[in-house]
Amino acid sequence: MPESNRRFILRTRPPGRITAETFELIEDAIPEIKAGEALVRTQWISLDPTNRTWLNETPTYLPPVAIGEVMRGVGLGRVVASKHDAYQEGQFVVGLLGWQEWAVASDAAPLRPVAEIPGVSATAYLGVLGITGLTAWVGLHDIGRPQPGETVVVSAAAGAVGSVAAQIAKLNGARVVGIAGGGEKCALLTERLRLDMAVDHKASDWRDKLVAATPDGIDVDFENVGGEIMDAVFARLNLRARVVLCGLISAYNEANPPPGPRSFRNLLVQRVRLQGFIVIDHLDRMAEAVADLSGWMREGKLEQLETVVEGFEQLPTAINMLFDGSNTGKLVLRVAD
Amino acid sequence: MPESNRRFILRTRPPGRITAETFELIEDAIPEIKAGEALVRTQWISLDPTNRTWLNETPTYLPPVAIGEVMRGVGLGRVVASKHDAYQEGQFVVGLLGWQEWAVASDAAPLRPVAEIPGVSATAYLGVLGITGLTAWVGLHDIGRPQPGETVVVSAAAGAVGSVAAQIAKLNGARVVGIAGGGEKCALLTERLRLDMAVDHKASDWRDKLVAATPDGIDVDFENVGGEIMDAVFARLNLRARVVLCGLISAYNEANPPPGPRSFRNLLVQRVRLQGFIVIDHLDRMAEAVADLSGWMREGKLEQLETVVEGFEQLPTAINMLFDGSNTGKLVLRVAD
Repeated sequence: MPESNRRFILRTRPPGRITAETFELIEDAIPEIKAGEALVRTQWISLDPTNRTWLNETPTYLPPVAIGEVMRGVGLGRVVASKHDAYQEGQFVVGLLGWQEWAVASDAAPLRPVAEIPGVSATAYLGVLGITGLTAWVGLHDIGRPQPGETVVVSAAAGAVGSVAAQIAKLNGARVVGIAGGGEKCALLTERLRLDMAVDHKASDWRDKLVAATPDGIDVDFENVGGEIMDAVFARLNLRARVVLCGLISAYNEANPPPGPRSFRNLLVQRVRLQGFIVIDHLDRMAEAVADLSGWMREGKLEQLETVVEGFEQLPTAINMLFDGSNTGKLVLRVAD
Repeated sequence: MPESNRRFILRTRPPGRITAETFELIEDAIPEIKAGEALVRTQWISLDPTNRTWLNETPTYLPPVAIGEVMRGVGLGRVVASKHDAYQEGQFVVGLLGWQEWAVASDAAPLRPVAEIPGVSATAYLGVLGITGLTAWVGLHDIGRPQPGETVVVSAAAGAVGSVAAQIAKLNGARVVGIAGGGEKCALLTERLRLDMAVDHKASDWRDKLVAATPDGIDVDFENVGGEIMDAVFARLNLRARVVLCGLISAYNEANPPPGPRSFRNLLVQRVRLQGFIVIDHLDRMAEAVADLSGWMREGKLEQLETVVEGFEQLPTAINMLFDGSNTGKLVLRVAD
């Protein structure tokens, strides 16, 4: 166990990609807990596209991380000492630990105790059984509602949310087309996740491939990406299609927003319903979602794809993997065992 | 009564604005009706932005008007002879009469008989009590659902649908801001229709004015225009705002679709629900809508703004008034009394 608390502090807001200048790695003493607090050792940190949006000055659905503040992030840790009735030593907890090796849980900064499930990796609580899985479940169950036989397109389908959304759509009986970058990811989608088709957006003819993969048009767009890919999907939306607007990762590193989709008019012509959503509005659905998701996992019908990066000090470089598309599935960083 | 049937036939698809080349004015014999048909004398023709979209080769919610075919359009006429039980001589009928002086009603091409209401102009059946009014009513009643005190922004608020939508939103207790082109239209919105604020999009500082007119943001966007105006409205949408996507007139004369809104991302951040709709899906709501709308008209709470153009031969030039913004309220063309 480290004898100090390394923490990444926001030094300067990046205009584009996160660089070595963005954060400062500082070393503080391990916090001493008071009554009503618990000390938590960080074991895993979840890296998510949304983290990048918190670094901009413009508020999103959460206030920006302040300069000089510890970088905000979801993590999984273990309680090592507790002066709070809700937390017991040895318990696993999930929540906004931040990019630091030690965190303090309290009523003002609560963490969610989770049970270890035999045969399921603890990192599932950051992925399929956590915010990632809830995002995919809510997007399909409450918003997209694909019917059997309908065509669902998932962008960033080899990503954390996308890979779960695509599998849930298959479990709902939909025809599922995944969009991902590179032949390897596309093979994974059709072979391992058993999607009906995959479209490689790095291929020069990806637009034609998308058309060929959706001969009956598109009924549900589970949108994680935005930009040119979303535009091409919008152009193929069917009558009364649904757009589950979950993420727009293609623009998160852009200082100025890019133009919106040229095929926007199709939302009108096809009477499309588009719903933007942020998972934190739907935390009350967690129990129901986890019941479904863990059931599917136990039955071997749903799997967690995962990319693991080792070492706390790798956080600022690891997060850029999301924007390079160099992760597959959930990107997590191991801080300690 | 004319002794022939003048008709506008589509000659060539306009790449941009409708010109003198677009239609050919031909003269046919007055149709002779057979059993199951009724002969209708066209009295009024409704000019609507959507007419322009039917001239493009790309199908919209209706097939394109074919080259050589009579231009499609809604009109109001009087039955002058009938060999069909549903139509009686002297009756007013509304529907797709087309751009012609005489039309034939049949089971394959039905028209809707309407009663004359004392004190209400027959053109109300093309406006407030017709498709225009139904569009505004469905958009607010079934989609936007403004709550008392919420801020509703209506673009093209001095137009046919916009002027009705803005008045309905006021009747629902919302704070209503209308966007229109020119000081005269804006004065009409605040003085005659009693909207809370009007923003003149022809003023150089219209963006600042929109911000000033919506200090608490925007809860419902009744969108008729698209382009830069929609973009500025999207940027001010509140949490859980609704976009009633009714029309995108700013692009109807564009051969290639313009870029979509840069502030598209706000649909995600603010968890916005956007619903494209086309009124023909909602004709089953007509009776309920007309009950509300005619009630408000009788009580003097809702008025029809109207611009009348005289003369059948003016149709191809009159329709461009919609795109120049030179009409106020419903644009109708008088063919005959």
